Amino acid sequence: MSEYSMRFIEDLGETGLIERISKRFKTGAIAGAVCGACIAAGAGEDDCALIDMDAARAVVGAGAEYRYLVITTDTVQKSTHFPRGMSPFQMGWTAVAVNLSDIAAMGAHPFAFVIAMGIPEHTELSALDEVVSGIEACASAYELAVVGGDITRSKELIMTGTCLGFATTPVKRDSAKPGDLLCVTGTLGNAAAGLKMIEGGMKFSPDIESVAKSALFQPVPRVREGIALADSGMVTSMMDISDGLALSLAELGRRSHVGFELYEDKIPVLSHEVPRELALYYGGDYELLFTLDAGAGTGEEKLKELQSELGVNVSIIGRVMPEEAGIYFKKGTVREEIAIKGYQHFSILSSNDGGWNNRNG
Amino acid sequence: MSEYSMRFIEDLGETGLIERISKRFKTGAIAGAVCGACIAAGAGEDDCALIDMDAARAVVGAGAEYRYLVITTDTVQKSTHFPRGMSPFQMGWTAVAVNLSDIAAMGAHPFAFVIAMGIPEHTELSALDEVVSGIEACASAYELAVVGGDITRSKELIMTGTCLGFATTPVKRDSAKPGDLLCVTGTLGNAAAGLKMIEGGMKFSPDIESVAKSALFQPVPRVREGIALADSGMVTSMMDISDGLALSLAELGRRSHVGFELYEDKIPVLSHEVPRELALYYGGDYELLFTLDAGAGTGEEKLKELQSELGVNVSIIGRVMPEEAGIYFKKGTVREEIAIKGYQHFSILSSNDGGWNNRNG
Repeated sequence: MSEYSMRFIEDLGETGLIERISKRFKTGAIAGAVCGACIAAGAGEDDCALIDMDAARAVVGAGAEYRYLVITTDTVQKSTHFPRGMSPFQMGWTAVAVNLSDIAAMGAHPFAFVIAMGIPEHTELSALDEVVSGIEACASAYELAVVGGDITRSKELIMTGTCLGFATTPVKRDSAKPGDLLCVTGTLGNAAAGLKMIEGGMKFSPDIESVAKSALFQPVPRVREGIALADSGMVTSMMDISDGLALSLAELGRRSHVGFELYEDKIPVLSHEVPRELALYYGGDYELLFTLDAGAGTGEEKLKELQSELGVNVSIIGRVMPEEAGIYFKKGTVREEIAIKGYQHFSILSSNDGGWNNRNG
Repeated sequence: MSEYSMRFIEDLGETGLIERISKRFKTGAIAGAVCGACIAAGAGEDDCALIDMDAARAVVGAGAEYRYLVITTDTVQKSTHFPRGMSPFQMGWTAVAVNLSDIAAMGAHPFAFVIAMGIPEHTELSALDEVVSGIEACASAYELAVVGGDITRSKELIMTGTCLGFATTPVKRDSAKPGDLLCVTGTLGNAAAGLKMIEGGMKFSPDIESVAKSALFQPVPRVREGIALADSGMVTSMMDISDGLALSLAELGRRSHVGFELYEDKIPVLSHEVPRELALYYGGDYELLFTLDAGAGTGEEKLKELQSELGVNVSIIGRVMPEEAGIYFKKGTVREEIAIKGYQHFSILSSNDGGWNNRNG
């Protein structure tokens, strides 16, 4: 069969598919992959990928120690993660971006990525190629080497990425202290606004719509920002806001045994058209939530420096309180509790009775 | 809701589920995890897992260099990977074992594992607990730390594991040389015999049936064997036989630019009841296929030593030939070609009546 008469993935078979995908990811193929020369076996080449660790640590940041290996794994799939209208390219991009966001949240340098793809039979080759282009584009944008993967036949498109990074001083979730400033990067509720627009008929002005759609369809992980924040030495804790601000605060509070006081008017949104609900209770923003040692009042100044250096908005949205204070908005002398809710898998009961445990028996 | 009234995973929600699963994997919880003390953040604790690399390298093998990081990712899912009758425990075990087999095939020391689980709604908690027990048991058997994961709601049970290992002298697929001896561990066709028994009504004697079912339902990755073979310094190339001997030979030949001459009567099978077809063209055995530098005739002797040290059968099944020789059985002066077929996702949408590829369709 000629290259030109092949339309569907089954025309290629597994070996052919692996070849086709691996070629796109082969050593050095990802433009600017920071770790290209460190890869002794890359995608499609062997039972495993092989990375020369000493070379990799040296290359990622000359002279730095990079004692910690940072690992995250995250799945995205058509029915639960890809909104209507998302292109195959954007699906591929998202599979990488959600993992990079976790690496960013540790303040780590990403360097290698593997991707397991479950692909439905009778997928058009051109659509798969686009998914792969999206993976490649996001990896390339963050100088990440795609070193391996797996393909299986599945009922819907499902991709599990695993990303590796290095860190010298990783920033964890368990180290916020009362008195710290509470901050976020960027604006919140953008992706939710996009979703509401597409699936709920909500309307915004054209420039807001454009930013919101882009946040929903092609999320930007805050990798450089995470590294700069960790390197600043002032950040006491950090995490990404993939499931909404409220749930993220609850998690950060739980891990660090602290509470939070928030200033409602400081929650950064794109415009007044975006309801506060979207910033608080919806996910998909992939911004960084972090706490800053306010020590001697230098925090805010240093933050302004970082902000202009990185070209990203950073907002102080509240401060860290003792755990018993809880999580609340301060409005003058009035205290308004924040509901701990947001996007959760499995949280909503349904009448579906098709569990794997009882399907066959 | 009390612990005792919860039956299905949706009663717990995502946070509850993550807690429940993470508890089983938390730092130090995996009995004997060789890298327990190297984990600065484990399952469910942060955006990423954190591993202290210097500590990890030191612990895995005191004094060794462990320059290479080895990574593999592999997906298993209900409809395509789990035969009828496989228990949830065995599904969990298998998700780890298939990844360990790839690590073994590099001759590397596995040390950390992450698992992304797609779980159908309305799965019984007890079934999920069993899957987790299987993951834990396999990790524990190989001193592997489960450092993180992800859960999503999916249409069927699907698990993507990613395993990390260290190697000083990883054994690749591209370095077999004409003249080398061709070898395999264990016996081939066991898992296929189990499948034929269960799904095709094939009958074997009781002791064969028991071994075959166990090979199919709870595969044993050759981790210690892979390390010992790599450490012997005599192995020139290695891979696992997850997709059947024929396809594995084709792949090894393609990577190393060599051919193979096989001795039919040397292909190790459990008993004469197991048809040669099952050893050649069916997957799921997870044995190691490797080539041995026969230099000065010491190969076979050293192999016997390894065999008795490891307590595993090693068979010399042929020898490496120049590429142009192809892949064939030698029967006296007669040459019989080996068909290059076996288990492939996406490949066979036809009348093939055998492989796992069309078991469900």
